[in-house]
Amino acid sequence: MEFIFLGTGAGVPSKKRNVTSIALQLLQERGATWLIDCGEATQHQILNTSIRPRRIEKIFITHLHGDHIFGLPGLLGSRSFQGGTTPLEIYGPRGIKAFIETALSISSTRLTYDLQIHEIDEGKIYEDDQFTITCKKLDHGILSYGYSFEEKDKPGELLVKQLQKSGIQPGPIYQQIKDNPRVMLEDGTMIEREDYVGPPKKGRKVCVFGDTRFHERFIPFVKDADVLVHEATFSENEETLAYNYYHSTTAQAARIAQEGGVKQLIMTHISSRYQDEDVNSLLNEARTYFSNTDIAADLKQFKVRD
Amino acid sequence: MEFIFLGTGAGVPSKKRNVTSIALQLLQERGATWLIDCGEATQHQILNTSIRPRRIEKIFITHLHGDHIFGLPGLLGSRSFQGGTTPLEIYGPRGIKAFIETALSISSTRLTYDLQIHEIDEGKIYEDDQFTITCKKLDHGILSYGYSFEEKDKPGELLVKQLQKSGIQPGPIYQQIKDNPRVMLEDGTMIEREDYVGPPKKGRKVCVFGDTRFHERFIPFVKDADVLVHEATFSENEETLAYNYYHSTTAQAARIAQEGGVKQLIMTHISSRYQDEDVNSLLNEARTYFSNTDIAADLKQFKVRD
Ligand SMILES: [Zn+2]
Ligand SMILES: [Zn+2]
Repeated sequence: MEFIFLGTGAGVPSKKRNVTSIALQLLQERGATWLIDCGEATQHQILNTSIRPRRIEKIFITHLHGDHIFGLPGLLGSRSFQGGTTPLEIYGPRGIKAFIETALSISSTRLTYDLQIHEIDEGKIYEDDQFTITCKKLDHGILSYGYSFEEKDKPGELLVKQLQKSGIQPGPIYQQIKDNPRVMLEDGTMIEREDYVGPPKKGRKVCVFGDTRFHERFIPFVKDADVLVHEATFSENEETLAYNYYHSTTAQAARIAQEGGVKQLIMTHISSRYQDEDVNSLLNEARTYFSNTDIAADLKQFKVRD
Repeated sequence: MEFIFLGTGAGVPSKKRNVTSIALQLLQERGATWLIDCGEATQHQILNTSIRPRRIEKIFITHLHGDHIFGLPGLLGSRSFQGGTTPLEIYGPRGIKAFIETALSISSTRLTYDLQIHEIDEGKIYEDDQFTITCKKLDHGILSYGYSFEEKDKPGELLVKQLQKSGIQPGPIYQQIKDNPRVMLEDGTMIEREDYVGPPKKGRKVCVFGDTRFHERFIPFVKDADVLVHEATFSENEETLAYNYYHSTTAQAARIAQEGGVKQLIMTHISSRYQDEDVNSLLNEARTYFSNTDIAADLKQFKVRD
């Protein structure tokens, strides 16, 4: 599981930072890539990564501002043009469906794969064996969501040495022991799984916020996340500007991380008023409140703990 | 007057060629830039040129395929974000208005300038003191236009030496002579303008075609153009493929130029199947039929004769 930042700027593209898109790589976990937001030229950024559009399985849209969605029609078309055939699901606020369908139909784009668009409400939006995905309303003038991707706990590893010590030889029985709370051997012995598996592995939790003002009520949503990706459009001393434009400062992003007890904060959506030489100062502002803070850059990757 | 090619690829962006957009720079002529087509990431390409979005006065859309229009919403929004206030007019096939208005309204994009969108029919679409602009239906499966931009002839230069030889001294009278067929001097002498101005300067004509199959009926439209920009998606030996996908080959583009008596052909919209090393061979194919042929590349500029 790792993040690849495809665009880390705010509002308009610059030479250094494209508009917003973030890839969550789940290649080992499910052979798939998920995207959060898809600003214009996201497909162009992808050309500079190992991401394959046909592997993109889900796209989550935080909000409908142009710098977060204008890359969708092109990406969907190219995924088709390049022979993608597996289904794709898009989640986002009401309006996303009309935007996509208008763009595809007016441009006579016919997709070679099944596209499902879900206009979502706050709460749980998806669940399968591996993940539970929920979203929370933020504060951005228009409806903007934060997403939480929670991996389910994985059962512990089979303690092979322990099994062999008890005289149970490798074979299909190992899988049976792993899959069932108790199993009877051929000789009638009852085997309790809990004696032969290690502790379950805690699933990971990563949260990605859309554009938003700071508010304490968002803290419980990110509770104990391994990674929080949060916008930091402005420097700490532009709190009024941030408030007026419905954005956050570095310090506010750090406060959410700190009070939420998250393990790592990655700041993104950086205003084009800040140059390369300002990055350290933005970072230091945040680290005053929350030390394990990083700042995203286009094409930068961040691994999430195994 | 010069062309700057912002995207010269076909269908999908590649690392070497972005999807279609062409700028016609008219800085000396009217302090303006016109765009023909606006594929995704046109605004990103513009960041690498001297073009200023606020100077873009008109955008002409050849057809509604995504690789020719998906950059419009972002460009329009950024032109606003960057403080553009002068009006912008867009011309294109029916449907372009719904596409733009849906994208802007769903993304809550409010423009700081007046935007007029004209859904055009074949024929003359614009005329002012400087230019007449007409469009012609091509053959691309969906409605696709070729545009002809014809500059009006400019009156000849005042022959200052001639005037001085006749004893007429510089002053406001010079402008009067230039502006009127005949002028009476203070001493009663009648001055005929035609004796004191050089020959009128022929206006230029440049044509830019949208995607199209080859057809002889397009030849009169490009008659005697100074520059024809024509798609050449495929190599000469892929004529069947070109026909099936409603595109042209290098040789077909050259034939239009040759039979239309144009002065220069610029080929663009090159399939991504062709690499850098194929460019010379594509060029040579066309030059067999029409020697003054060039091939566009992203960010390449071509000056039109003064
Ligand atoms: Zn926003
Ligand atoms: Zn086309």
